[in-house]
Amino acid sequence: MNTEKIPYKIYLNEDEMPKAWYNLRADMKQKPAPLLNPGTLKPMSVEELSGVFCKELAAQELDEDTHFFEIPEEIRNFYKMYRPSPLVRAYCLEEKLGTPAKIYYKFEGNNTSGSHKLNSAIAQAYYAKKQGLKGVTTETGAGQWGTALSMACSYLGLDCKVYMVKCSYEQKPFRREVMRTYGASVTPSPSMETEVGKKILAEHPGTTGSLGCAISEAVEKAVSSEGYRYVLGSVLNQVLLHQSVIGLETKAALDKYGIKPDIIIGCAGGGSNLGGLIAPFMGEKLRGEADYRIIAVEPASCPSFTRGVYAYDFCDTGMVCPLAKMYTLGSGFIPSANHAGGLRYHGMSSTLSELYHQGLMEATSVKQTEVFEAAEYFARVEGILPAPESSHAIRVAIDEAKRCKETGEEKTIVFGLTGTGYFDMVAYEKFHEGEMNDYIPTDEELAAYRDKLPKIV
Amino acid sequence: MNTEKIPYKIYLNEDEMPKAWYNLRADMKQKPAPLLNPGTLKPMSVEELSGVFCKELAAQELDEDTHFFEIPEEIRNFYKMYRPSPLVRAYCLEEKLGTPAKIYYKFEGNNTSGSHKLNSAIAQAYYAKKQGLKGVTTETGAGQWGTALSMACSYLGLDCKVYMVKCSYEQKPFRREVMRTYGASVTPSPSMETEVGKKILAEHPGTTGSLGCAISEAVEKAVSSEGYRYVLGSVLNQVLLHQSVIGLETKAALDKYGIKPDIIIGCAGGGSNLGGLIAPFMGEKLRGEADYRIIAVEPASCPSFTRGVYAYDFCDTGMVCPLAKMYTLGSGFIPSANHAGGLRYHGMSSTLSELYHQGLMEATSVKQTEVFEAAEYFARVEGILPAPESSHAIRVAIDEAKRCKETGEEKTIVFGLTGTGYFDMVAYEKFHEGEMNDYIPTDEELAAYRDKLPKIV
Repeated sequence: MNTEKIPYKIYLNEDEMPKAWYNLRADMKQKPAPLLNPGTLKPMSVEELSGVFCKELAAQELDEDTHFFEIPEEIRNFYKMYRPSPLVRAYCLEEKLGTPAKIYYKFEGNNTSGSHKLNSAIAQAYYAKKQGLKGVTTETGAGQWGTALSMACSYLGLDCKVYMVKCSYEQKPFRREVMRTYGASVTPSPSMETEVGKKILAEHPGTTGSLGCAISEAVEKAVSSEGYRYVLGSVLNQVLLHQSVIGLETKAALDKYGIKPDIIIGCAGGGSNLGGLIAPFMGEKLRGEADYRIIAVEPASCPSFTRGVYAYDFCDTGMVCPLAKMYTLGSGFIPSANHAGGLRYHGMSSTLSELYHQGLMEATSVKQTEVFEAAEYFARVEGILPAPESSHAIRVAIDEAKRCKETGEEKTIVFGLTGTGYFDMVAYEKFHEGEMNDYIPTDEELAAYRDKLPKIV
Repeated sequence: MNTEKIPYKIYLNEDEMPKAWYNLRADMKQKPAPLLNPGTLKPMSVEELSGVFCKELAAQELDEDTHFFEIPEEIRNFYKMYRPSPLVRAYCLEEKLGTPAKIYYKFEGNNTSGSHKLNSAIAQAYYAKKQGLKGVTTETGAGQWGTALSMACSYLGLDCKVYMVKCSYEQKPFRREVMRTYGASVTPSPSMETEVGKKILAEHPGTTGSLGCAISEAVEKAVSSEGYRYVLGSVLNQVLLHQSVIGLETKAALDKYGIKPDIIIGCAGGGSNLGGLIAPFMGEKLRGEADYRIIAVEPASCPSFTRGVYAYDFCDTGMVCPLAKMYTLGSGFIPSANHAGGLRYHGMSSTLSELYHQGLMEATSVKQTEVFEAAEYFARVEGILPAPESSHAIRVAIDEAKRCKETGEEKTIVFGLTGTGYFDMVAYEKFHEGEMNDYIPTDEELAAYRDKLPKIV
């Protein structure tokens, strides 16, 4: 391996882009626990799921055996508009830190949605279109998923209805305008448009909302509207499947130069980016072909891996969705209004939860102020203003690189830079003004939510 | 030429990136008219210019003979963080328009400054640093240049003081925060910090500012502060020199696939993007090696090419800068508060003015609402939300492609997509609300400013 020859940015050619998504579950001996019907407590069937999701997505959701799903040509062509994304060698960051570590990041922010979310949005919109639907409903936290879905729907001519977590709606006034540019309608959640929204507002009049609550509203809207289905930007197996394109590209780019990472780091809210980034690496690990340290980074204000429990729980606040076994803080948990809106989910992908439970990956949590310190440092050195979500991974990547400086180890670190922070300037402003809130839930608070978990063995 | 093989995005390899900037003036038989000292009305010398600009930049400004300037390695390394930029084949736009035209755009927006401005910012900051200066001052219209300079200064450890045109400062509250993230100080202009600012405010208390006015303030601040120089993001020859990297990359990418453009289109405010994009093509035209239709697109609200006069004028409102011969509306002209802040300059690059005067390029003007219609159309089809400035070029590219549809001609159109509109959502909102102002100055208004031009033969 000749590190002299590694460019600043490794781009694959278009013909080197993945032609199939990789389904990590197919290589897991102990599969993730199945989704349960909240009424019968029995595993959901494709037919049952098809009332909420498009039929083909429901099938992808439950498929534990198929290793690869071919990416339809129309989706591959859409991917070509903004992919392949670069794998960047962080030469400037390494130099500034004075670390012997080699740092790479997979940059998914160079598209108008500003994040990796577009990878699954176009796939889900494609299957909705193929099924002949009129439109889709969804929720959005930071606004990245909603923007991505708006773009995909606009491209395919589908209607798009977005419920946006109220605190993000207020912190990011321009996000709504971007979605509107792409023809979507955007409602702050909780709203008076749905029964579940009305109920939550009655119980918590001042709530800033949560992803779990916005999900309930979007699902209710979808099942009560003719020709609509619900789509989700994270947590689900189908999303991790589509996001595997991140990891597959990353691995192909590394393989091109004979690079083997030691540590792989991703931020984790519902798990869409992390699950996608690590997929092929975890696959090797599961098959005993290679070993990697894999680290999930979550906000200290919403610590589902590090302080949650591994149990069946509702995916949404309104308890209308199927039950999933996952690391969870309880579906009633509403985190403090921190600025990483995309990481404010009470639970975690079932697949990642099971892998974590098996000890195949680590998790750590970081405080908001530390995250923004890393974000600003990175922006100045690498020239990219990162999203608060992505900056969780930056924080830990920098810490690991500093550790290498102490020990002299030349480790290779790869992290996911999921998106840009151009719509997060209210958050940066608070950081500059010293008004950032580092609130962490107490053990008592977490215990209170935990006590309300459904009792399912 | 096999068009089947042309990818969606043509990326050069890092070793194919330009190693020298191209100085278009060296190939002009009739050179642009020289800058004049406003006191003596004699051509400025390098020594005189060095009071305002860094020494090496002053030399570049006046050099009409050197064809190529080597790009210093430190700048080339910085370029590698965000360049090469892709030359995109607009397959989706072509299909949607149903045009036989082949459309390409050079996309300069995939960096945190959001535009091509970074290409010259890092060069100017580099020479300031090399000269041992403490910092630089500048003006910014849309905020793209100010952001770019902040990033470059932060990277090199220079102080950065930005005067931002007041209407942009108010329309783009988050731009200030990005610059602050990069450690710059930002002042809305006109301000009470300078003598010229005080004077303008006294005469026009309600003014929304202009680039010409912000320039005056930044120049005053630079010459009255020890260890500071002034830098400018457009208009100047040195800027066009640095921006030639856009055109050189574009040409290299086209040459790789044997593509010869018929029409080259760029938006024009002061000329930085247009001058950079067309440089090598215009060079061929000047040397009689090839012919191209080259079109400058400007806002109907600030039509220096299409309704201005070719005459010596002040570059700034305060009349402290050298005089330049250019197409101008008069240095006192303050355009209506349209949303293409980067195109609100009263004059035009001397080099481009001379080329236009010689009939080597065309110019056209477009109204704001038409521009935003094109912007939204493009965003939905090509997936990139464009800056209002860039959307001027999009408008004309679409119009030319539609003309090809009528005539059946398979023309190859190349346009410059200079940046993204992520900080322009107030403008998009006004467009969606139908509140966009299409004001065009009357002949009487323009005549009044023209009458105040300095009388220099």
